[in-house]
Amino acid sequence: MALIVQKFGGTSVGTVDRIRAVSGIIAKTQRAGHDVVVVVSAMAGETDRLINLAGALSVEPSARDYDALISTGETVSAALLSIALQEQKASAIALTGEQAGIFTTDNHRRASITHINAEIIRNYLSKKTIPVITGFQGVNSIGEVTTLERGGSDTSAVAIAAALKADECQIYTDVDGVYTADPRVVPDVKLLELLTYTEMLTLANLGAKVLHRQAMEFAERHHIQLRVLSSFHEGEGTMIVVGEKNPPPRVSGIAIDPHQLQFSFLGIPSDQSTLDQLMQALEGIAFAKDMTMQNHLPTEDCFDCVFTTREEDAQAAILFSRALANTLKARELKIDEGRAKVSLVGLNMAAHPEFSAKIFQTLGEQQIPIYLITSTEAKISVLTDVAHAAQATKLLHTAFALNCEGAQSLAGCS
Amino acid sequence: MALIVQKFGGTSVGTVDRIRAVSGIIAKTQRAGHDVVVVVSAMAGETDRLINLAGALSVEPSARDYDALISTGETVSAALLSIALQEQKASAIALTGEQAGIFTTDNHRRASITHINAEIIRNYLSKKTIPVITGFQGVNSIGEVTTLERGGSDTSAVAIAAALKADECQIYTDVDGVYTADPRVVPDVKLLELLTYTEMLTLANLGAKVLHRQAMEFAERHHIQLRVLSSFHEGEGTMIVVGEKNPPPRVSGIAIDPHQLQFSFLGIPSDQSTLDQLMQALEGIAFAKDMTMQNHLPTEDCFDCVFTTREEDAQAAILFSRALANTLKARELKIDEGRAKVSLVGLNMAAHPEFSAKIFQTLGEQQIPIYLITSTEAKISVLTDVAHAAQATKLLHTAFALNCEGAQSLAGCS
Repeated sequence: MALIVQKFGGTSVGTVDRIRAVSGIIAKTQRAGHDVVVVVSAMAGETDRLINLAGALSVEPSARDYDALISTGETVSAALLSIALQEQKASAIALTGEQAGIFTTDNHRRASITHINAEIIRNYLSKKTIPVITGFQGVNSIGEVTTLERGGSDTSAVAIAAALKADECQIYTDVDGVYTADPRVVPDVKLLELLTYTEMLTLANLGAKVLHRQAMEFAERHHIQLRVLSSFHEGEGTMIVVGEKNPPPRVSGIAIDPHQLQFSFLGIPSDQSTLDQLMQALEGIAFAKDMTMQNHLPTEDCFDCVFTTREEDAQAAILFSRALANTLKARELKIDEGRAKVSLVGLNMAAHPEFSAKIFQTLGEQQIPIYLITSTEAKISVLTDVAHAAQATKLLHTAFALNCEGAQSLAGCS
Repeated sequence: MALIVQKFGGTSVGTVDRIRAVSGIIAKTQRAGHDVVVVVSAMAGETDRLINLAGALSVEPSARDYDALISTGETVSAALLSIALQEQKASAIALTGEQAGIFTTDNHRRASITHINAEIIRNYLSKKTIPVITGFQGVNSIGEVTTLERGGSDTSAVAIAAALKADECQIYTDVDGVYTADPRVVPDVKLLELLTYTEMLTLANLGAKVLHRQAMEFAERHHIQLRVLSSFHEGEGTMIVVGEKNPPPRVSGIAIDPHQLQFSFLGIPSDQSTLDQLMQALEGIAFAKDMTMQNHLPTEDCFDCVFTTREEDAQAAILFSRALANTLKARELKIDEGRAKVSLVGLNMAAHPEFSAKIFQTLGEQQIPIYLITSTEAKISVLTDVAHAAQATKLLHTAFALNCEGAQSLAGCS
């Protein structure tokens, strides 16, 4: 018998039919002998509906009343899910953040959970009653409803799991788990059974929206066993665990970002003051700079500098780059649109040059251009053309044997 | 400077535009130097939407979770109205029933307010902050949200007015106040400036849905000055006050119920046991019996009995009447559809036969049939045909000078 926290996102409880289906999942878990605590998001679209109502009345609504307003989305879905559970002959009770003893900082709209009175929840569990708790909200020291960051229901779930020392925190969503790549790009993707938080956070940095970042960081700190799975299809989903130190190197998945813009400053005079100016300028920019590289040319009296941004920052980046190229007296500023970043995500790859070698070899054989390559412990990213991105991803997916059951290694399919 | 409780119903806050308009009314009242406490219903349609969601999941949802669910309707409208008030540069705060200190009995769905911690509201008023309080809800002794009867926001408003000893409780709605008759029937109706609770409750018994009955009874008991007015048009509305003892007789308005069904038991043998059987049968019926009359015939060996019901109870009443006619050995049972009840509502009319006389005279002159006439202190009702109901109402409206400014008397227009 385990203690399991199950969190259901907005699409999982988006309609009464979905709520009924979800109540079946919960009741089944309880019937299997487990203690279940449920955390629930607002029905899909409801939070936006409430935000739009407030927005129609005020450009900057009072944060306190705004929280009172949008927290009702979760109150509704928790009550409905509790009612649905009772129809399944399960004992259940809907609890607001306040009723569940979830205390937060005093600030509104981006409050942080400070502590949870686990006794309240434990009392219900001891009576075999399933607490259905509103995610995304808590109560502050003066008894006012507060809300966390958008997507904060994940955080609520892991915080509750930590407070209860739960055996597992299951995040139900509308995908089956985490795949080795985007199934729309690579036909033979595999569902990953196990990922480390390091990899999951890296995927989140690359744009994966499966889990809320703050929730993952909290879960990792508290050594919570997390599982991402679908409320639409049965399955084991992807388990996320804290990785060991010095893990064996591996590739777990590939992410594509087809919205990159490349800025190349060519022939910058290579004196110290210019270098300082460049560094300062790159530190202070107001848009999100992505990949960066400096190439010192053999002549050593000048160098190149390349960085990329996402297309959404194009305007700011172009203005910045033109001014900077002037200041640095660069020979040429080249701006290339239509770049794509293909990232291998895994563990401990930077220390093993055979990963980069395999990338160069795989893409080189097919004349796929690599404009830039950067790496960290958990990822190696290559910049190529949008036109080549899907092909590059498919080739790398096969080269690193990600299409094999339980692969996650440098080896091919066994 | 007065202390005024302003309550806004669902249509008054049915859209963001309406909420903005209502915030203008409130802010204007405050700028006029008054202390204002606001009580608000859910946006029109919202409570039904929530009830339907619960109904789709369960035939008999848990009353506790049901209350948690439907109370969110008022939480939303209170937050939005508070936000709108802040846009008007007024200081405002949205309060749930619990936050406003409104305590109720423990039972759900039909809880009664037990007491109100007026200090909480007074504290906000002392800071010139407008408390915008959710109607229809409170908190019970174990900290759970409870809801009152449907329409209970009126009750919330008068209970708050009583707790604060407010100078006036204003019920804003989608009508301008109480009229002397239905404006669709009588073209020259007048808005009533002043009504007693006795008259208002009598109108409610006759189907007027302006104010919640329980709220009126509470307001009368606590001698609250109530005002019904429109949030759509400016105007003074209708003030409702506790009447004096032995008031001068008057007619204030006329109500029509065009959905009456007449049951006539003719020639019932006039012995004591039959009479007892009849009385018992009439006491125990499960549908709403309306007007009743017994006519003892001159022969005195048999009598007639007549009662009416509303059409919605037709089926039950017909079954009952056929069985009863058999039991009582009545010579004949006549069932007449298409009857209408026209009721004069006013004060102290039963003791003054000149009112009945004027009715008989007015309708008799135009050959309008009167099948039945019943009277209480506050009303005289006549049963006629649906086809004659509008004409009868217009004639009586003029005969009792209700089309004159400030009339409410037996006299004609001055």
